[in-house]
Amino acid sequence: MTFTVQATERETRARCGRLETRHGVIETPVFMPVGTAGTVKTLTPDELQMLGVEIILGNAYHLYLRPGHKLIAEMGGLHRFISWDRPILTDSGGYQVFSLAELCKVTDEGAAFQSHLDGSFHFFSPESVIEIQEALGADIIMALDECLPYPSSPEATRAALDRTLQWARRCRQSRTRPDQILFGIIQGGFYPELRQEATLRMIEIGFEGYALGGLSVGETQPMMLEVVDQVVPLLPEDRPRYLMGVGMPEDLLECVIRGMDMFDCVIPTRHARTGWLFTSFGRVVIKNAQYAKDETPLDAACGCYTCRRFSRAYLRHLFMAQEILGLRLNTIHNLHYYLRLMEQIRLAIREGRLMEFRNEFYRMRSEIERAHP
Amino acid sequence: MTFTVQATERETRARCGRLETRHGVIETPVFMPVGTAGTVKTLTPDELQMLGVEIILGNAYHLYLRPGHKLIAEMGGLHRFISWDRPILTDSGGYQVFSLAELCKVTDEGAAFQSHLDGSFHFFSPESVIEIQEALGADIIMALDECLPYPSSPEATRAALDRTLQWARRCRQSRTRPDQILFGIIQGGFYPELRQEATLRMIEIGFEGYALGGLSVGETQPMMLEVVDQVVPLLPEDRPRYLMGVGMPEDLLECVIRGMDMFDCVIPTRHARTGWLFTSFGRVVIKNAQYAKDETPLDAACGCYTCRRFSRAYLRHLFMAQEILGLRLNTIHNLHYYLRLMEQIRLAIREGRLMEFRNEFYRMRSEIERAHP
Repeated sequence: MTFTVQATERETRARCGRLETRHGVIETPVFMPVGTAGTVKTLTPDELQMLGVEIILGNAYHLYLRPGHKLIAEMGGLHRFISWDRPILTDSGGYQVFSLAELCKVTDEGAAFQSHLDGSFHFFSPESVIEIQEALGADIIMALDECLPYPSSPEATRAALDRTLQWARRCRQSRTRPDQILFGIIQGGFYPELRQEATLRMIEIGFEGYALGGLSVGETQPMMLEVVDQVVPLLPEDRPRYLMGVGMPEDLLECVIRGMDMFDCVIPTRHARTGWLFTSFGRVVIKNAQYAKDETPLDAACGCYTCRRFSRAYLRHLFMAQEILGLRLNTIHNLHYYLRLMEQIRLAIREGRLMEFRNEFYRMRSEIERAHP
Repeated sequence: MTFTVQATERETRARCGRLETRHGVIETPVFMPVGTAGTVKTLTPDELQMLGVEIILGNAYHLYLRPGHKLIAEMGGLHRFISWDRPILTDSGGYQVFSLAELCKVTDEGAAFQSHLDGSFHFFSPESVIEIQEALGADIIMALDECLPYPSSPEATRAALDRTLQWARRCRQSRTRPDQILFGIIQGGFYPELRQEATLRMIEIGFEGYALGGLSVGETQPMMLEVVDQVVPLLPEDRPRYLMGVGMPEDLLECVIRGMDMFDCVIPTRHARTGWLFTSFGRVVIKNAQYAKDETPLDAACGCYTCRRFSRAYLRHLFMAQEILGLRLNTIHNLHYYLRLMEQIRLAIREGRLMEFRNEFYRMRSEIERAHP
C-alpha cells in the first residue's frame, strides 16, 4: 500500500492524499457509497462511474449470509461478481452483528449470532472475518471490532476496547493476502483516556490505515468531533484515517477539517429513498405539497442527471406513486451532491481556503433557513 | 394522421407500416411498453430510447387520479412532465375502471367508480375521458369502451357492444384536438356475429385507427386468435390495427401473422419484476437454484446491457436480496427481448419469410423443452 499526503492546510488539520490500491487510486478526502449487498442500492456500476465514485463499500456480514463469500469467491471475487473494477472496501461485519443480528453473544473468541434473514446460527471470529474478506477480495479490509451503543459504562467500554485490540492483533496475524490493505478500528467510546489508550495501542500493533469506530451511534455532533479531535493528533501522518458510518454533509466537512480522510455512510442513499434530498441550499423533502406544481429542477445549480432532466413536480409524483424510478433519480442526485461536496473540499484544501469554503457552505444554508423558517 | 403500409406478405396477413404522429414516426408492427403512472416502471426515458422504444403507453385512469390530468396539463403536458419526446398513446381509462376501481356502476351516461387509491368518488363519461386525454396531450388517444370479463352472456356482450358504440360516437364528437389520433375500440366478446357487427358499426362511425378490446381477459390463445381472424378481414387496409393488452411473445407473433399492427402489454415489465425472463430459448426463472453459481449471461445471444455486463448468478443474487437493481436489469432485458422480437418480425415481413421465422422461433423453444423437460 502507498498513501501519500499531497497537500495540507495551515489553518486546519485537513489534507489531500492519494491511496493506491490494487484496483486504482483513491483521492482523499473521499466519500464511499455503501453497497451493502453487492449493489449501491438502485444504481448500476456505470451510473456510479458516471457519478465519479472511486470506491464503494461492501458489507461482509450481508455478503457472507447471502449469497455467501465462498460463492462470490467461486464467481471470481466481489469485483467480478458485481461487475465493478474500481476499489472496494469491506467492513468486517462486526457492526452488523451487533446492530442487525439476533441474539448476539460475544466472548473473547468472537461473536455468536443468528442471521436476521432466517434465524440460522453463525459465529464470527477475528480469523473468520479475515477469511471472509479475503474470499470477497476487497482492496481494503477491516479488522473485527466490538462496537458499543451510546451511552455505555466506562467498564463496558474498556472491556470492548481490550477485546477489539486482541481481535485486531489476531486479524493481523491471520491475514494471508498481501495485496489487501488492512485497517485497524479504534474503539474507546466517549471516554477521552480510553480513546487515547485505544489509539496508541492500535498504532503499536501497526496497521496500514486506522479507522475510528463506535461513532454515529446516537451521540451529538460536538461529542463526535471531540473524539476526532482527541484521536487525530495521535495518528501517524502517513496512514489514511477512516471515520466509519459518518455522516451528514456538515459532519464530513467538520471531520475533514479535523484531519479525517475517508468516510462511508448510508445517509445519501437511504435518505434518497425516503425523499430527503440534499442541495446546496439545504434539504428538500420532495413529498411536500409545495413541489406538486414546481417545474424547476431540484437544484438549479446541480449538474446531475436528475436535475438536468426532470422537474420537482415529476420527482414528487414519482415519490407519491412509489415508483422505483423516483428512488433511482433521488439516489443519483444525493450521491452526486456528496461526491461534488468532497470534490469541492479537496479543491479548497489544495487552494488553502477550506475555512472560507466552510463559511460559504453554512451561509448558503442559513440564508434558506431565514427564508423558510 | 398518415398511416402507410409499406410491405405485405403473400402467405400471411402481416404487414409493415409507418404511422406518423406529432412526436415522430412509429414503425409497425410495434410493441408499446406500458408506462402506467408516467414511467415505464424502473426505467429512465434515456434507457427506453437506448432500447429503441418508439412509443410508450400511459394510463389515463392512473394519471387522472394521480397526479391529475390538469396538473400534467399545467406542467406542459405528459411528454414534458415525464421528459419523453417520442410518441405516447393513452388508453381511455375504461379498462382500469372495470378492473381496478371499486364499486363501479355503469350506465349509458358513463361509469361511476371509487378510486382504488383512496376510495374517492369519480365519474368517467365518453366526453370526460376525451377531455382527460386531450389535457394529457398524447399522440394517440382511445375512445371509452365497456370491457367485459370472460365468460359473459350474449345479452351482456350485446349490451356492452351497443354502449361501446354509443360512447365511441360521443368520443368522436367531443374531441377538439386535431393533432391527436383517435382510435375506436371494437368489443363483442367471443361471439363471432357480435364481433362482426361491432367491427362494421365501428368502421361506419369512422376512426383513424381500430383497436381490438376485450381480449386477454382469461380466454385461451386459440379463442383470441379466432377473434382476430374474424375481425381483421373486415378492417380497412389503410388504418392501423391495435390489439390491446396482448401479450406473450408467441401471441404477438401469431397476431402479426393475422394482420395486427400495434400491441401493448405489462407482461415484459411485470414479469421482469417477478424474475421471469424471456430469452430466445424460452423462459428463465431467475430465482431457481440452478443459476446460483452460473457465471454465464442470461442469454449469450442477447446484446442488452444486462446480458453484456452481468451473470445469471448476480441477477439471481439481486433477485433473492430484493434489490431494485435486479428489477431494473430484468426490465431492461425483457423489454430488449420484446423490441428485438418486433424488429426481427418487421424484417422477416419485409423479406417475405415470416412463416420461416415463425418455424425457427418455435424450434428454438421446443429444443430447450426437449433438453429440460
